[in-house]
Amino acid sequence: MSTPRKVKVNNIDNSGFGPNSNVEGGRLTNKDGSTNLRKTGMPFWERISWFHTLLRMSRAKFWISILLFYTFTNLLFASIYYLIGVDQLMGIDGHDSEFHRFLDAFFFSSQTLTTVGYGHVAPHSIATSFVASTESFVGILAFAIVTGMLYGRFTRPRAYLIFSENALVAPYRGGRALMFRMATYKNNHLTDAEAMVTAAVHVKEKDRELTHFYSLKLEYTKVNSLALSWTVVHPLDENSPLAGYTKQDLLDSRVELIVAVKAFDDHFSNTVQQRTSYTINELVYGARFLPMFHRAEDGSHTVLELDKINAHEPAAVPEPELNLADLDALTNS
Amino acid sequence: MSTPRKVKVNNIDNSGFGPNSNVEGGRLTNKDGSTNLRKTGMPFWERISWFHTLLRMSRAKFWISILLFYTFTNLLFASIYYLIGVDQLMGIDGHDSEFHRFLDAFFFSSQTLTTVGYGHVAPHSIATSFVASTESFVGILAFAIVTGMLYGRFTRPRAYLIFSENALVAPYRGGRALMFRMATYKNNHLTDAEAMVTAAVHVKEKDRELTHFYSLKLEYTKVNSLALSWTVVHPLDENSPLAGYTKQDLLDSRVELIVAVKAFDDHFSNTVQQRTSYTINELVYGARFLPMFHRAEDGSHTVLELDKINAHEPAAVPEPELNLADLDALTNS
Amino acid sequence: MSTPRKVKVNNIDNSGFGPNSNVEGGRLTNKDGSTNLRKTGMPFWERISWFHTLLRMSRAKFWISILLFYTFTNLLFASIYYLIGVDQLMGIDGHDSEFHRFLDAFFFSSQTLTTVGYGHVAPHSIATSFVASTESFVGILAFAIVTGMLYGRFTRPRAYLIFSENALVAPYRGGRALMFRMATYKNNHLTDAEAMVTAAVHVKEKDRELTHFYSLKLEYTKVNSLALSWTVVHPLDENSPLAGYTKQDLLDSRVELIVAVKAFDDHFSNTVQQRTSYTINELVYGARFLPMFHRAEDGSHTVLELDKINAHEPAAVPEPELNLADLDALTNS
Amino acid sequence: MSTPRKVKVNNIDNSGFGPNSNVEGGRLTNKDGSTNLRKTGMPFWERISWFHTLLRMSRAKFWISILLFYTFTNLLFASIYYLIGVDQLMGIDGHDSEFHRFLDAFFFSSQTLTTVGYGHVAPHSIATSFVASTESFVGILAFAIVTGMLYGRFTRPRAYLIFSENALVAPYRGGRALMFRMATYKNNHLTDAEAMVTAAVHVKEKDRELTHFYSLKLEYTKVNSLALSWTVVHPLDENSPLAGYTKQDLLDSRVELIVAVKAFDDHFSNTVQQRTSYTINELVYGARFLPMFHRAEDGSHTVLELDKINAHEPAAVPEPELNLADLDALTNS
Repeated sequence: MSTPRKVKVNNIDNSGFGPNSNVEGGRLTNKDGSTNLRKTGMPFWERISWFHTLLRMSRAKFWISILLFYTFTNLLFASIYYLIGVDQLMGIDGHDSEFHRFLDAFFFSSQTLTTVGYGHVAPHSIATSFVASTESFVGILAFAIVTGMLYGRFTRPRAYLIFSENALVAPYRGGRALMFRMATYKNNHLTDAEAMVTAAVHVKEKDRELTHFYSLKLEYTKVNSLALSWTVVHPLDENSPLAGYTKQDLLDSRVELIVAVKAFDDHFSNTVQQRTSYTINELVYGARFLPMFHRAEDGSHTVLELDKINAHEPAAVPEPELNLADLDALTNS
Repeated sequence: MSTPRKVKVNNIDNSGFGPNSNVEGGRLTNKDGSTNLRKTGMPFWERISWFHTLLRMSRAKFWISILLFYTFTNLLFASIYYLIGVDQLMGIDGHDSEFHRFLDAFFFSSQTLTTVGYGHVAPHSIATSFVASTESFVGILAFAIVTGMLYGRFTRPRAYLIFSENALVAPYRGGRALMFRMATYKNNHLTDAEAMVTAAVHVKEKDRELTHFYSLKLEYTKVNSLALSWTVVHPLDENSPLAGYTKQDLLDSRVELIVAVKAFDDHFSNTVQQRTSYTINELVYGARFLPMFHRAEDGSHTVLELDKINAHEPAAVPEPELNLADLDALTNS
Repeated sequence: MSTPRKVKVNNIDNSGFGPNSNVEGGRLTNKDGSTNLRKTGMPFWERISWFHTLLRMSRAKFWISILLFYTFTNLLFASIYYLIGVDQLMGIDGHDSEFHRFLDAFFFSSQTLTTVGYGHVAPHSIATSFVASTESFVGILAFAIVTGMLYGRFTRPRAYLIFSENALVAPYRGGRALMFRMATYKNNHLTDAEAMVTAAVHVKEKDRELTHFYSLKLEYTKVNSLALSWTVVHPLDENSPLAGYTKQDLLDSRVELIVAVKAFDDHFSNTVQQRTSYTINELVYGARFLPMFHRAEDGSHTVLELDKINAHEPAAVPEPELNLADLDALTNS
Repeated sequence: MSTPRKVKVNNIDNSGFGPNSNVEGGRLTNKDGSTNLRKTGMPFWERISWFHTLLRMSRAKFWISILLFYTFTNLLFASIYYLIGVDQLMGIDGHDSEFHRFLDAFFFSSQTLTTVGYGHVAPHSIATSFVASTESFVGILAFAIVTGMLYGRFTRPRAYLIFSENALVAPYRGGRALMFRMATYKNNHLTDAEAMVTAAVHVKEKDRELTHFYSLKLEYTKVNSLALSWTVVHPLDENSPLAGYTKQDLLDSRVELIVAVKAFDDHFSNTVQQRTSYTINELVYGARFLPMFHRAEDGSHTVLELDKINAHEPAAVPEPELNLADLDALTNS
């Protein structure tokens, strides 16, 4: 017979989410660790932080945004010069076509915006001088912003972690354990890495559905150095809030694991943080991870194979001897 | 009969404020969390941090300051060129009007300050060359400062928290509790959020008035994640320094709550902090907060309604069975 | 009779300084908190961090350095153009005097360095084109460095604390205490401020002189908020390593107080730190601090008088009942 | 007879390295503290953080990279102008030689890239205007990146520590101790410095070789201030996992010391970290460090001789009375 839970497992109330499943929709945390949440009641522009949106944008999108900004600003100012009359810009040849005249205005605009200012075309009237004075000012400010944005993107502290796509219920010391693993994929080095795993369990209670949150106890909460890979292990023993859960119980309660990793990164000399989550669909019951590092052929160093981060093979796990109902009865008696 | 205070509640001396009410004026902490304090005995320019003042300025004020700086610097240098004589700038047409001549100097100045330097107008004499050399140098330094300032504004770590306008004395587990709530209003995510609430209570003692400071014990001091809203709760039970305070007692002692929230923000990968305070005028006696989040109609996510942050309805709270005087007698006996 | 020391006071070995007075010279820590230390055995340029030296430079010195750099770089490139021959710069009028020719080269240099590039003077030959191409490149890099330097200066986290010029031995709860005080002088706000005071005491032991280091126990090691002033108090009671020291004992042992204050600053959202030290010459025996804040006349706020930070008046302190020798005998028995 | 180990010494599993020696190659940690590790399974460009690679590059390499970038970008754009035809750039004299024509395109390119734009040469056709507009845009973005990179290099928090080249087994309080020392070599000041030493010991167990990791207990784990030098001491007493190891045992087990130092630096107001390691080849058995600081001749300050950081002299150390086998027997009995 299995040992009953030694510790009374309390669900925690300070998870940042509410206990009432009925008012929350979908998964709580997205795969990238952001909360599955929409905010209303405030205008859009007050709810968004533009700078950080640009900071978190993908590289391609970011450069396209910059390019579009450059093009549209030039088009805008070119239109103004064109409307004022390009004859007020000295040095422009009397082109026949209107398109040519607009193009000249466009190129003059770009020379002003970037402050290259060759001067073979130059503002001649008060109106064009004034617009050009404004445009060069705008240009300098815009590139001051871009400088800050680029620096911000470069120096945004990130953990550069990859997680295994799946969390496993694996054999562990004669019993079972929840496992997932992670590794850094850049030339960065994390120290004092700390993992925190919260399980959200959906429980039917009379007519309504509640969400219980449990902080899962880990084999190691902290590693001194995240040099190779780190397999985070939560033993499904009698102290676990998920003790006694069979495969079906896990499915029924739609378990969601919310993972947060915090570490000190020597690239940034700063604390970095990454989050992810595993829904029940990303949980593989009965599997074990395969090794992902080996000695180099010449023996001079160790090789870490990042593409094997999720490599696992089926492995039998013992069923819990007591089912959930028995266990709860025991705990409450 | 109510249970007397189990713990001896000591007022704290390390609040940063003095214990003597007579030497302090008005509320201690402003609504935005800054201290209601004026410093003297040092010249103004040594007491102010210009950079941080510009950093904390509203967006509109900041851009207007930049624009004014650009305009006035141009006016200054334009005046110098004008005084030297615009005929020492080659390429300037012999305009009739003095105003036109000044305008030409102004536009030349702006072309120099922004380093656009078309060159259709250029310094011709030693004097104008020297001034132009200085101006372009000033221009580059000024925009270096602006670049830094813009970056500083963008990256200034902020918690982006809104607090409920009112703190409530609400019904709580058969008794009463002080409550207020907060939520993040941007697309940011706070983790390890920690709240600290200090109560300043004004007490008449013989001929003088003292200020006692109490650190209030909270239901949860820390939440792992501030995803939805967080209602901070201080139970007004027998362990509270405010136990036994009736509505009138609270009014008489002009209770002021000083609130500080600290968290780790993933936008900035930095500790962020926000403060606020509640004076007795912002305290609602006998009310409860209304829910501010619900499941989205399509069930795929949760909706947080920021405009309901202060939504509350009247709710009866039990009066303390022992009044303040009785309780103090009990504690001291 | 006085109570003997209740705790065995051990000197600490991890102060960062050595225990042997004979190998250390002068005061250990300077008034500004830097260590009174010179490093040798490595070339000067490897021992200095240029960036941080420029960061910590006074404002005046910094701007003069920038100005000198601009002038000397221009002089250098002007000399190169002059040596190549200014006739290889088109647009330069055939001036008679050599000085005028050099000035023209100088102004062309400044137009290139700042990238203003009017173009009324422009490089005509391969040699001058090459030098100008180099100079504009140098200019951009130089101003990139200046931008970084300015931003670094603005955002260098500083505590902006002033300390009382003197530490006092003041009357305290019927006994004596070491006291000094501090306040922030800018519009900044420190929270979670923590003080650490180490006493270095010089002791003659047989033929050599040793330095003992003691960590002094403070009335409050931490204050939640450093809003007004903070008087740091070390009671000279029976638990103090300086218990039993008379005025003469303090003088004889050349006591030096090394002070470090650490806090969280909301300007910088960063930990700030400031250090200072008090030698025996800066210690006033028998004095008490005068109040430095009062209620504003209109009662709306509190006024903190920074110029009173060191204000103190003479105050009698009781002599220790047991002298140093007696006490040591007691402790060791 | 020696005292047997008082505490059961467990090897630690959270070192970030695996326990199986057979899959790891060479030393675990390089002399500069980086892990001796190669990552595969992801494309190179995803595994590298360009920004941080440029940040950690030596000064010489960095400036050469910048210079090469400038040269190649100019060559690229010069080629484009040349291919379009330099006759579409107005102001270019009809040079005879093709090389001269290319040089003119090159210098025009550099004037555009740096935005100096004299204008004596200027784009005349749509094609050249378009390329020039693109180039000036590229120039501004490139120098925005360089500005960020320079600032990043300047402000990258570093501990500026030098370590002794060797770790010593030195006489210590009648027994033996492992020692190495460190000092800051710049004008920086570290406070709250913390050292962590992990020993990796290779142990033959039946047919395979295991790596055991031990966290070594230090005389002082933390020093308040790293003003002078700090000698880190691990006593090889009965509580050490290396107790009983003779010189030969140390050699046989190929002991590797992995050292991490963390401190608060007042230059950066940030936590700085430096790592290093000592393999068995860098361990000197039977030696003691020589003093590395002395009083200045004029007595006004202390002199720290950085070139003596590794200075040591031979010194006899007592052999352990019990050898490794005896001790293990004792511990396990």
